[in-house]
Amino acid sequence: MVQQSFYPCDSVGIFFDDKNMSGNTLGKIFCVTNFGESHGKVVGCVIDGCPARLPLDEEVIQKELDRRKPGTSRHVTQRQESDQVQILSGVYQGLSTGTPIALLIPNTDAKSKDYTDIEHLFRPGHADYTYWKKYGIRDPRGGGRSSARLTAPTVAAGAVARWWLKNHLAIDIQAYMLQIGTQTIAFEDLLFVNQNPFFAPCQDTEYLATYLDHLRKSGDSCGALLQVIARNVPVGLGEPIYDKLDADIAKVMMGLNAVKGVEIGSGFDSVEQLGSQNGDIITTEGFLSNHAGGILGGISSGQDIVVKVAIKPTSSIRLPRPTINTAGEASVISTLGRHDPCVGIRAAPILEALMALVLIDHVLIHRAKNEH
Amino acid sequence: MVQQSFYPCDSVGIFFDDKNMSGNTLGKIFCVTNFGESHGKVVGCVIDGCPARLPLDEEVIQKELDRRKPGTSRHVTQRQESDQVQILSGVYQGLSTGTPIALLIPNTDAKSKDYTDIEHLFRPGHADYTYWKKYGIRDPRGGGRSSARLTAPTVAAGAVARWWLKNHLAIDIQAYMLQIGTQTIAFEDLLFVNQNPFFAPCQDTEYLATYLDHLRKSGDSCGALLQVIARNVPVGLGEPIYDKLDADIAKVMMGLNAVKGVEIGSGFDSVEQLGSQNGDIITTEGFLSNHAGGILGGISSGQDIVVKVAIKPTSSIRLPRPTINTAGEASVISTLGRHDPCVGIRAAPILEALMALVLIDHVLIHRAKNEH
Amino acid sequence: MVQQSFYPCDSVGIFFDDKNMSGNTLGKIFCVTNFGESHGKVVGCVIDGCPARLPLDEEVIQKELDRRKPGTSRHVTQRQESDQVQILSGVYQGLSTGTPIALLIPNTDAKSKDYTDIEHLFRPGHADYTYWKKYGIRDPRGGGRSSARLTAPTVAAGAVARWWLKNHLAIDIQAYMLQIGTQTIAFEDLLFVNQNPFFAPCQDTEYLATYLDHLRKSGDSCGALLQVIARNVPVGLGEPIYDKLDADIAKVMMGLNAVKGVEIGSGFDSVEQLGSQNGDIITTEGFLSNHAGGILGGISSGQDIVVKVAIKPTSSIRLPRPTINTAGEASVISTLGRHDPCVGIRAAPILEALMALVLIDHVLIHRAKNEH
Amino acid sequence: MVQQSFYPCDSVGIFFDDKNMSGNTLGKIFCVTNFGESHGKVVGCVIDGCPARLPLDEEVIQKELDRRKPGTSRHVTQRQESDQVQILSGVYQGLSTGTPIALLIPNTDAKSKDYTDIEHLFRPGHADYTYWKKYGIRDPRGGGRSSARLTAPTVAAGAVARWWLKNHLAIDIQAYMLQIGTQTIAFEDLLFVNQNPFFAPCQDTEYLATYLDHLRKSGDSCGALLQVIARNVPVGLGEPIYDKLDADIAKVMMGLNAVKGVEIGSGFDSVEQLGSQNGDIITTEGFLSNHAGGILGGISSGQDIVVKVAIKPTSSIRLPRPTINTAGEASVISTLGRHDPCVGIRAAPILEALMALVLIDHVLIHRAKNEH
Repeated sequence: MVQQSFYPCDSVGIFFDDKNMSGNTLGKIFCVTNFGESHGKVVGCVIDGCPARLPLDEEVIQKELDRRKPGTSRHVTQRQESDQVQILSGVYQGLSTGTPIALLIPNTDAKSKDYTDIEHLFRPGHADYTYWKKYGIRDPRGGGRSSARLTAPTVAAGAVARWWLKNHLAIDIQAYMLQIGTQTIAFEDLLFVNQNPFFAPCQDTEYLATYLDHLRKSGDSCGALLQVIARNVPVGLGEPIYDKLDADIAKVMMGLNAVKGVEIGSGFDSVEQLGSQNGDIITTEGFLSNHAGGILGGISSGQDIVVKVAIKPTSSIRLPRPTINTAGEASVISTLGRHDPCVGIRAAPILEALMALVLIDHVLIHRAKNEH
Repeated sequence: MVQQSFYPCDSVGIFFDDKNMSGNTLGKIFCVTNFGESHGKVVGCVIDGCPARLPLDEEVIQKELDRRKPGTSRHVTQRQESDQVQILSGVYQGLSTGTPIALLIPNTDAKSKDYTDIEHLFRPGHADYTYWKKYGIRDPRGGGRSSARLTAPTVAAGAVARWWLKNHLAIDIQAYMLQIGTQTIAFEDLLFVNQNPFFAPCQDTEYLATYLDHLRKSGDSCGALLQVIARNVPVGLGEPIYDKLDADIAKVMMGLNAVKGVEIGSGFDSVEQLGSQNGDIITTEGFLSNHAGGILGGISSGQDIVVKVAIKPTSSIRLPRPTINTAGEASVISTLGRHDPCVGIRAAPILEALMALVLIDHVLIHRAKNEH
Repeated sequence: MVQQSFYPCDSVGIFFDDKNMSGNTLGKIFCVTNFGESHGKVVGCVIDGCPARLPLDEEVIQKELDRRKPGTSRHVTQRQESDQVQILSGVYQGLSTGTPIALLIPNTDAKSKDYTDIEHLFRPGHADYTYWKKYGIRDPRGGGRSSARLTAPTVAAGAVARWWLKNHLAIDIQAYMLQIGTQTIAFEDLLFVNQNPFFAPCQDTEYLATYLDHLRKSGDSCGALLQVIARNVPVGLGEPIYDKLDADIAKVMMGLNAVKGVEIGSGFDSVEQLGSQNGDIITTEGFLSNHAGGILGGISSGQDIVVKVAIKPTSSIRLPRPTINTAGEASVISTLGRHDPCVGIRAAPILEALMALVLIDHVLIHRAKNEH
Repeated sequence: MVQQSFYPCDSVGIFFDDKNMSGNTLGKIFCVTNFGESHGKVVGCVIDGCPARLPLDEEVIQKELDRRKPGTSRHVTQRQESDQVQILSGVYQGLSTGTPIALLIPNTDAKSKDYTDIEHLFRPGHADYTYWKKYGIRDPRGGGRSSARLTAPTVAAGAVARWWLKNHLAIDIQAYMLQIGTQTIAFEDLLFVNQNPFFAPCQDTEYLATYLDHLRKSGDSCGALLQVIARNVPVGLGEPIYDKLDADIAKVMMGLNAVKGVEIGSGFDSVEQLGSQNGDIITTEGFLSNHAGGILGGISSGQDIVVKVAIKPTSSIRLPRPTINTAGEASVISTLGRHDPCVGIRAAPILEALMALVLIDHVLIHRAKNEH
């Protein structure tokens, strides 16, 4: 049954012809401008607003990029990218100078021929369709601009942010997997998170491997649920009314490819809670619970910031599905390129980077208006 | 058990003394700057960027404010505010002139004495604590700036936005209740939404009244779950990579007082879905489903935009709870002022306003970069 | 001789019909949003980003408004406006709270009938024509939005800014007249500036009064040249490459009604200077000169910031001149309303306010990125 | 005589230690983010907001860069940079895609050893001093970030802007020299501007060559006066009150290295003009004069936009001058690196680029709020 016909965009003058966008900058003071395409020469970003005299070299950034990079296990895309970052500017003799830091990550393993079949077809659940309608042109190679590859510059910029946050405020950020598809993960210890390919906080992840092997062979994909926690965040961050800390966290998390839901603290469970349960009691020794997820009235409370993120299944799957082409004709599509069967698996380092980027920006904004 | 001690903010120089914020402007082109306090002289806003020659008078705005205003049933706060809006500028002979539109809503029923008891106490779950820590000063009367009363200017500005969207693109926005506390609501028809005090899409709401009467008498409060839908949204809105349409929707929704979770389309259900289920099939006659909630790759697809929002229970309750005062000493608090037992009840018109504000801004930004 | 025919705007689709603007906010952190029209109910502004705990009341602001207000001598417009400012929000018990400060200045002496003759005529040199072409609508009463009356909110916001700058950094700002029309003013002492109606730094201003009396009787108007100086500005303000301190000063000064030229330091005299003259020598005891006007490479040097501003003659004059009407037909116009014969006379307090607004914003931005 | 002692920055906590900036992005919709240092690996920029489907290749950009590049005559710096631009992203099959366009210009002839002598000395009139005080660190090689070399990315971005403006609105922009040092230039014809190394609108420029040869041999430098004109600018651009078109033009022009004065139309001559002279008469066939320089009330009038810019003499000169070093001790400096004796000579293409960047941004902002 057809649930909704196409919006007749062509009949509305303003949504017809050549189109454009911007919106590729994140942050107000610590600003990250992202550029590049999946199969272009490079992906990269410019960080404008990093405080001066931060000790900085490629190593600091590379460490985080390596956690995100593809090809590290059979459960993620087999594209082989070393993701070697180059610092082009803004660092002199090992210190940031306060000027823009341009970061470049060359693309080395782009197999664009894999994608020629889908140049004129829209993958269900993919941005192919909307990019085409918005701009009247798109770079289809590897998903072009809508590829998850564009999270690499975000991770690189986030590495600088978390390094600064670590050095100056001892803020610590960690993301981990709560669920892959139907497989929930019992929390054991954060120590395990970086010891398995799933960022799972448990020792035995064989059942996840089995689940994903099966899924991959079936040609299908699945979603994931992750949690990200920031510790040692000072009380007072966030700019109500509109630029609240939770608002900005929700923005960056929902803005990550494939994310469809964001919760702070008790999140959707708050609906059924009573006020007497949900309100975290304050004692002379601290809060007795953290239903608020570390944010009250849009301002950090000094408790851990706790965020949950739902990621939908990868939209590029091998299973054939009906679709239409750019000419509007019916067709069938089966995506053969290299794809993550569960795009959420590599999300942990990205969520950490996004959290770091929001926090550093709010720290700097807050500092702007402090008395001394 | 104490879960986390206070962050020792006072020992970190930058988070100690006098503090400040801004962040009270929403939007990039259609910009709303919000001002006022719950028990000050007025609340209000300035809209900068409304296109010229929009037919506009107080009536257009008042209609929406009346849907949000307090005191309309026994299930919401008994504060009696007529919420009469005044247009101070930007309209000449019944048409917007393209210059800033200042809107004023006087406060008439502020009973500040109700709050004297809590001037130096922090309500659990409330912004009292974080405002105090952030600014070193707060207006405690009626919650001051953190009061839900500050959503009135947002609704007023949203009324202008939705009026423009209705006139120019026939966009239609509607929010309704899915659940109050433990009471789920079976969807019957949108016609019922404005016929009961709960914005519930069903005819018989007696069970909700009974539930809330019981709750109110107990001195406690509960949460709520709402859905907001936008129809006739053109394909192509949204500015990837960071300023995606869903990112901006998540930001404004999470930024509303008491909201703790936001979902687009299938939201958290996406985690357990397979890619073959979740990807909405495109046919020559339209999409066959709407798991995406109307947004693909951060850009509107032309389908309905579907958002779910979780609202926590009101933090101001009559039940006594332990807390501390501004001097850091242990105390007990019981909030006797007039409060909504379920702040989510009046959220529907606010969610609609927020959706309208995001959409008009993205329409105008999109239009900026269109070819002609 | 016709120098240039009209641009055929009507044939370019995008510049024809209803139009709009925004751009009514100044500043990035200390943000001032200006609203109102000359003969509307009010003029006013919202300050978002003022640091908390600044002692503040109407008195602080009124003092500056009184220096700008009309009707104080026979040499300025005879409109009688008391310009009484009201603080609507953001101040609690005599201190700023860090939340938006809304300021309102009611219009009390608006004689709109004076303007009915010119509702459909364009004054040569006035914004009548461009507003009409841009928006397709304008409020013609008293110049509507393009009136110099809209500088009152700027002065009010500037009063808050300079009060903060004075208290926190001992920054001192003063503007004074260098020339009115053909009458140059010999500098004697800054003490005289506030002792005559011309903001002239000299004791005897009788010759200026005589010149302006003659001018007023002739039905014509003249321009003015002013200088504004900021003292005790710390070294280090300004954000190169684009948001340099001098760039932002030039923006706000040129953005003031009727300003046609801005110089920093030696300004246009720099053209004929040699590098060996122009470069201010640095010694162990300070700079030996100030050709730079206190800014090097877009960053304040710690020297006085020195700016000169050229203001054109008032475009509303009694002398009849040929023009066209909104229908494009030839006509003649003579402006009989109350106007300043030299709009530059009241510019000094406005220039000071603009300088204060730029400086506070740069101080706060700078502070955001400082190490501690 | 010491005119002013140093501001005691070290005694003010907030202006002492490590420091930072941002402010390296120009524009609101067509946004240019500039990065790089004079002797780093590269200079470059990211353009975010270029409309899609603009035909674009390196050629379009290179043409403008070649007009600005060094080493083209004996009258400019002898640094040999081919300034070969690379488009890294945002273009697919010869068309802009609406995604960020990253541009890279490698530095190839950086002779940093020339600068070792001045690593710890401040050149009078140069940004050395203020960068050092602001950031506590600077890249001294070739002036680092404060070098005029950073105008290359501005010219590159401006080339894209003017190409779009030319294609879509037939806007034409041209800058030329009015005066070099004491040598005024009689206007003959714009045809000559690109036929001599001085961008002079006259045929015989031998006297300028002689003047500059003499100057260069003397080890000194001089200033310059240029004019930039934009033709076919539609009526209606500019966003009053604060973001006026002339305000934004003044900002970018004053923000260019070494600029100390900006005039629009009659500029400083307006001071002595009467209102009856200065107001440009409007007839049924157009304006009879252009004292306004094409802007009335901050909005373009459809007439030519006419701007004059004063550029100070190069601060890096061979003549020895007293100065201090980073330790605050007295010293003497003589700059031996390769420098332009008159930095204004290469300014024409940069002024054109800046004008193009302001205009395209205002065209796109204006379009955002147009009715259709």
